Amino acid sequence: MLRRLFAFFVIATTSLGGCASAHRLDSWDDSAARESITDFVARVSTPGSPEYVPPAERVAVFDNDGTLWAEQPSYFQLLFAMDRVRALAPSHPSWNDEQPFKAVLENDMTALADSGHEGLVEIITATHAGMTTHEFAAIARNWINTARHPESGRSYTEMVYAPMLELLDYLRANGFKVYIVSGGGVEFLRVFAEEVYGVPPENVIGSSVRTEYAESRLGPVIRRRPEVAFVNDKAGKPVAINEHVGRRPIAAFGNSDGDHQMLRWVAAGDGLTLCVIVHHTDAEREWAYDRDSPIGKLDKALDEARLRGWTIIDMRNDWSRVFAAPMPRD
Amino acid sequence: MLRRLFAFFVIATTSLGGCASAHRLDSWDDSAARESITDFVARVSTPGSPEYVPPAERVAVFDNDGTLWAEQPSYFQLLFAMDRVRALAPSHPSWNDEQPFKAVLENDMTALADSGHEGLVEIITATHAGMTTHEFAAIARNWINTARHPESGRSYTEMVYAPMLELLDYLRANGFKVYIVSGGGVEFLRVFAEEVYGVPPENVIGSSVRTEYAESRLGPVIRRRPEVAFVNDKAGKPVAINEHVGRRPIAAFGNSDGDHQMLRWVAAGDGLTLCVIVHHTDAEREWAYDRDSPIGKLDKALDEARLRGWTIIDMRNDWSRVFAAPMPRD
Repeated sequence: MLRRLFAFFVIATTSLGGCASAHRLDSWDDSAARESITDFVARVSTPGSPEYVPPAERVAVFDNDGTLWAEQPSYFQLLFAMDRVRALAPSHPSWNDEQPFKAVLENDMTALADSGHEGLVEIITATHAGMTTHEFAAIARNWINTARHPESGRSYTEMVYAPMLELLDYLRANGFKVYIVSGGGVEFLRVFAEEVYGVPPENVIGSSVRTEYAESRLGPVIRRRPEVAFVNDKAGKPVAINEHVGRRPIAAFGNSDGDHQMLRWVAAGDGLTLCVIVHHTDAEREWAYDRDSPIGKLDKALDEARLRGWTIIDMRNDWSRVFAAPMPRD
Repeated sequence: MLRRLFAFFVIATTSLGGCASAHRLDSWDDSAARESITDFVARVSTPGSPEYVPPAERVAVFDNDGTLWAEQPSYFQLLFAMDRVRALAPSHPSWNDEQPFKAVLENDMTALADSGHEGLVEIITATHAGMTTHEFAAIARNWINTARHPESGRSYTEMVYAPMLELLDYLRANGFKVYIVSGGGVEFLRVFAEEVYGVPPENVIGSSVRTEYAESRLGPVIRRRPEVAFVNDKAGKPVAINEHVGRRPIAAFGNSDGDHQMLRWVAAGDGLTLCVIVHHTDAEREWAYDRDSPIGKLDKALDEARLRGWTIIDMRNDWSRVFAAPMPRD
């Protein structure tokens, strides 16, 4: 009761005070990157500021893989799909001799990579479809609650970046609506986004398989069909944001060329905008990769960020802490 | 300043008081329909109630045409499309001899109806595509601000139902997230939904043409392509709600068989649910139609509503006021 009253008091004083809510960006060093973010937030959220933006229009979009949580040695959802192939293999004996499934079952990452985009689609449709949305959520939830990262031995939800969690809170405290805009599957992300990031399901935008309404024995359900409906990557991201949010965001956060069009589109909006790239420079506490990485390749977007003065987060130098607890390495 | 402080006080006392926010459903008669709505809201929003639902899960979905605003003599967006055909005709001389455009230019509603679904798609793609989303919004906004309803002579945004506006406010005051889920085009609806209904763009779900990201002379834009991407009607509605919101709503409001699957899906959810049908029974103040109407046909959904005890709003008897000001009729 008292806590709730106190919360209202805080909201009231923040709104009346008319300046950016004090940040608790504790895992950030006192860097140019942090300064550019807090400066932007103050300018768009302080009433009377020439760059003031009403809360309804304070939309910030975040990529997920490599921006909010790690993405090495491979996208976590691909590791989920591979675990599903292993779990489903006993009822698909033909997979032992059939690519790309054979590669998964033999843990042959080279053969898996050789199967390319088509192989990936085959794995996704074989593991992410053929059930109701409710059933899929239960499978994904069970995995996220039990699976462990191959290098850290941690749960995947412990592989989120502490500074980015603080940033999400900081933006929300300053009246921003925060969306996740991920190449990952929307119904996979929704299983943990609310608990881990504080982002409710309706603020998650992702890739999807085709779904359809069906009247089952148990009543009406939504079924997942073995067909990729939308790939929320590259030029797909601005398209999906426009479709889902109906406004151009004023801030965008990404880490790879998959976010390039989203960043460009946000940068081209009216008024003050903020474009931020998380640059993976920390081989010790996380991973170091950019232009030559098959996962999270950052090349053209890095060039443009430097050319146009976008904010680049240097993980090694700008973050005092990467994960809530350091990753155990030998 | 004082108003804002007062608003916080109201929120605080409402939350602390722990009972449904007092309604101002002034345009509603003291009817069974109103009672069923206020009873449902009290049961799901009062802490300690056996049917209590946390605010995050209090999702209510509303059809638009015939549920929030009128839809006679034809869907308003079709009237917009016909106005666009007339406006664009000078640069398309072939339309004078070519269906379905000829029918529009000659105001021949029979020939237009004969052109069927394919004719409709041709009109939509010819009038709703080929420009950026920004340009389309400007065209739609200009129309909505200047066009007049053929029978009432009013602007279309004056053809919204006063009791439903009160209901939207009432639900929001009780912690509901309100979504529009319309067969109409999402980018058409977003032009007025926030101002007229208080529903922000991100809470509007509708039909869409295919959009694509493009690098134009003016920078990155989203272009509307002449191709229908999604029809948000019938079985499409639950699919789109699941995709967009990621939760099954607990309350749904519709008026036609186009809302039937959405209502059935919501009714099949866990816990207490509310399914409401607006029944057009008022030939004097609005229009009276149901099973035999080509617009807003209500047949199977009406049977099921009666069979399962869904709430049916009898416009003639349950609403003391339909529009904010009565429609001028001779």
